[in-house]
Amino acid sequence: MASQASIPKGTRDFLPLVMIKRNFIFQTIQEIFLLHGYLPIETPAMETLSTLMGKYGEEGDRLLFRILNSGLPPVIETKPLKEITEKGLRYDLTVPFARFVVQHRNEINFPFKRYQIQPVWRGDRPQKGRYREFYQCDIDVIGSNALLNEIELLNIIHLIFKKLNINITLKINNRKILAGIAEVIGQANKLTDITVAIDKIEKIGIEKVTEELLAKGIPSTAIEKLKPILTLQGNSEERLAFLETFLINSETGQKGIVEVRYLFEFLNSVKSPVLQELELDTSLARGLNYYTGAIIEVKANDVAIGSICGGGRYDDLTGIFGMPNTSGVGVSFGADRIFDVMEQLNLFPENLQTTVPVMFVNFGENESRQAFLLQQELLKNNISSIIFPSAAKLKKQFDYANKQHIPFVAIIGDKEMENHTVSVKNMITGEQEMIEQTKFAAFFR
Amino acid sequence: MASQASIPKGTRDFLPLVMIKRNFIFQTIQEIFLLHGYLPIETPAMETLSTLMGKYGEEGDRLLFRILNSGLPPVIETKPLKEITEKGLRYDLTVPFARFVVQHRNEINFPFKRYQIQPVWRGDRPQKGRYREFYQCDIDVIGSNALLNEIELLNIIHLIFKKLNINITLKINNRKILAGIAEVIGQANKLTDITVAIDKIEKIGIEKVTEELLAKGIPSTAIEKLKPILTLQGNSEERLAFLETFLINSETGQKGIVEVRYLFEFLNSVKSPVLQELELDTSLARGLNYYTGAIIEVKANDVAIGSICGGGRYDDLTGIFGMPNTSGVGVSFGADRIFDVMEQLNLFPENLQTTVPVMFVNFGENESRQAFLLQQELLKNNISSIIFPSAAKLKKQFDYANKQHIPFVAIIGDKEMENHTVSVKNMITGEQEMIEQTKFAAFFR
Repeated sequence: MASQASIPKGTRDFLPLVMIKRNFIFQTIQEIFLLHGYLPIETPAMETLSTLMGKYGEEGDRLLFRILNSGLPPVIETKPLKEITEKGLRYDLTVPFARFVVQHRNEINFPFKRYQIQPVWRGDRPQKGRYREFYQCDIDVIGSNALLNEIELLNIIHLIFKKLNINITLKINNRKILAGIAEVIGQANKLTDITVAIDKIEKIGIEKVTEELLAKGIPSTAIEKLKPILTLQGNSEERLAFLETFLINSETGQKGIVEVRYLFEFLNSVKSPVLQELELDTSLARGLNYYTGAIIEVKANDVAIGSICGGGRYDDLTGIFGMPNTSGVGVSFGADRIFDVMEQLNLFPENLQTTVPVMFVNFGENESRQAFLLQQELLKNNISSIIFPSAAKLKKQFDYANKQHIPFVAIIGDKEMENHTVSVKNMITGEQEMIEQTKFAAFFR
Repeated sequence: MASQASIPKGTRDFLPLVMIKRNFIFQTIQEIFLLHGYLPIETPAMETLSTLMGKYGEEGDRLLFRILNSGLPPVIETKPLKEITEKGLRYDLTVPFARFVVQHRNEINFPFKRYQIQPVWRGDRPQKGRYREFYQCDIDVIGSNALLNEIELLNIIHLIFKKLNINITLKINNRKILAGIAEVIGQANKLTDITVAIDKIEKIGIEKVTEELLAKGIPSTAIEKLKPILTLQGNSEERLAFLETFLINSETGQKGIVEVRYLFEFLNSVKSPVLQELELDTSLARGLNYYTGAIIEVKANDVAIGSICGGGRYDDLTGIFGMPNTSGVGVSFGADRIFDVMEQLNLFPENLQTTVPVMFVNFGENESRQAFLLQQELLKNNISSIIFPSAAKLKKQFDYANKQHIPFVAIIGDKEMENHTVSVKNMITGEQEMIEQTKFAAFFR
């Protein structure tokens, strides 16, 4: 019986045209990473469960794809999950990178700048724009706490989206500001609940956020104090000025302000175009507890699709693998969402096509040998071509060329064999001209 | 407690230098695929078990990595394996490609030429040169039974290994010749046992092969008839001449000879350099039952490492997914073994390095702003650079540049800030010169 031709839900096949567009995104990103001295690494698709578990919260543990140990019997008799599975599929690139840095600490020089472009897997419920297999493109600098790294990341984000023609808003915040806010409203120990609630302001509005905060046990007096933050307006400078007063009694909060100010002042002093995109957003938290300084998120201005890039600074990510006090900062570009944005806004260059410039028509064995020889000349000039593999009916061969959008068809029939020529038909204009075989490659060059 | 920093056995991390060398291989392969009109596709890492099971023999089924269904309880109570796992990791690229072709038959034009470069996973016992995660680089033409496709594949193999500087032997055989051999010794129904035994001749010698054939129930009279094949000597032309007589009574065998002759004659008539590498090897079987015509295998001449590329023609691969009579032919390049060959023979180009041409020394905030501005000029000229992120001690910064093999260090101190210059130190010669900032990018261009 034939197996059904289908794939697991939430996964995708990529056909050639989509592949070529995706590769355009990857190449653009990668070029700019390389220009800034970030070097490629790759880690295995599988990590041990001890590397992955407990790093992404309870939900993350649940969404990990676990791999069954080899050599199990066909029937499993009452076993704890952990006895039949020791490995899982990579859930993001950050935790494997932390593991990598610790494992290879003696082989790399710090500060270590790496990029990594690989798929990750999550057992999320599949829905529009959310897949169970998707690519992340990460850059991180590890082993340096200098804010110049944040500047570089902001500049890289700017350069990449400029090159991709996507208009963006580049939101930044700082975990120390969030900690300061929790502190001055007397709820330092509720930092996570507060940031999660703040994070939802845009989506669910101030009333629901208030309800949520109350439900988490935050007293209404504290929530009252928080209100100015929840309704904070104005440009980044005005927000910073407000925070300076609001956080006057929090040393941590003040440190956060100094860090954010540094970024704005640096960019101002070099008249950076990043400033047009950059805004301080105190509601930005990104849910990830490992951030300790800058928090960064990018949204596309012209499509509502959620964040297309995000990251931040983490002062102790490698600590979980036994290497403390190693500060890092990085961002991750979401290639799948960037693809969706570019597709919706029609931003891919016109010349990304799944075609070759030339197809040789096949009239039979002798003629195909001549076509083969001419193809070798094209190869020497880096010109792609195909030879139709069989001497099928001419109509079939021309139909194929048309369907594949091949602009030139090269014809070598009796007459051309005799004269040592090739007839070249322009499939768009319909014009046809005869070229000497010795001048064929030059014609396309 | 800190997790241990380690990865599952049989898997690997790739550090930057190795990545750059691997990418060189992938790019070389990919360029030549594209020049012949092969287009990229990708399929998901996970396939349903019904797609994978039964396609790779019993051993294959055992070596598949299965993925646990989501949402299982922490303790599994007596369950058949198939109830807790419905998906598996890709075991090769051929079966997913067959599934892809059937699933997308209405979206693609035949003959369809695709390439695919992705990792595959097998639960083999890890050993030197054998990994549980490794990359395959496959090309296939599907929907054409013309032998011109085989010619093209042989030529592509030749071009790729020439470009990689690897001396190869390109062995070919034909399944119809193997079937003919089984037929004329009166053992048509033992084709698989015979080819498996023939396949081992080089490794275990004629006596052991004879034992194995006897054990499989092949009578000694038949084995006696097989002897001339097992000891076949001479060049490809002599072997073909022998086979023509030997297989005189097998129609299938004669067809195989005609196919092999076609390849040699075509290549002869175009004076192809492939001929220097090509040899007919009747002991070549490659164990895969789905081959129906050409069988192809490549060995490196200067390193003993097994096959580095292989493939063949299959007339009914898509039949298992309900689309019969679709002939295809393809080969797979083993990137990991090719890497090992190139590393052992020192074949990678010298200029593959993990370095950038320029590092800016960091003397503090003002100076780093100036460095940032000059870096933007380099970026406009596609020149990579890094700015040391903090104003660390000079010795530390120069040590870093040395360890990273950075050839030029750009110094912007007090004097240079004042004069609008940059001092550029050549880290190899030790020479240092002062350049106007306006001429800095031009210096590196």
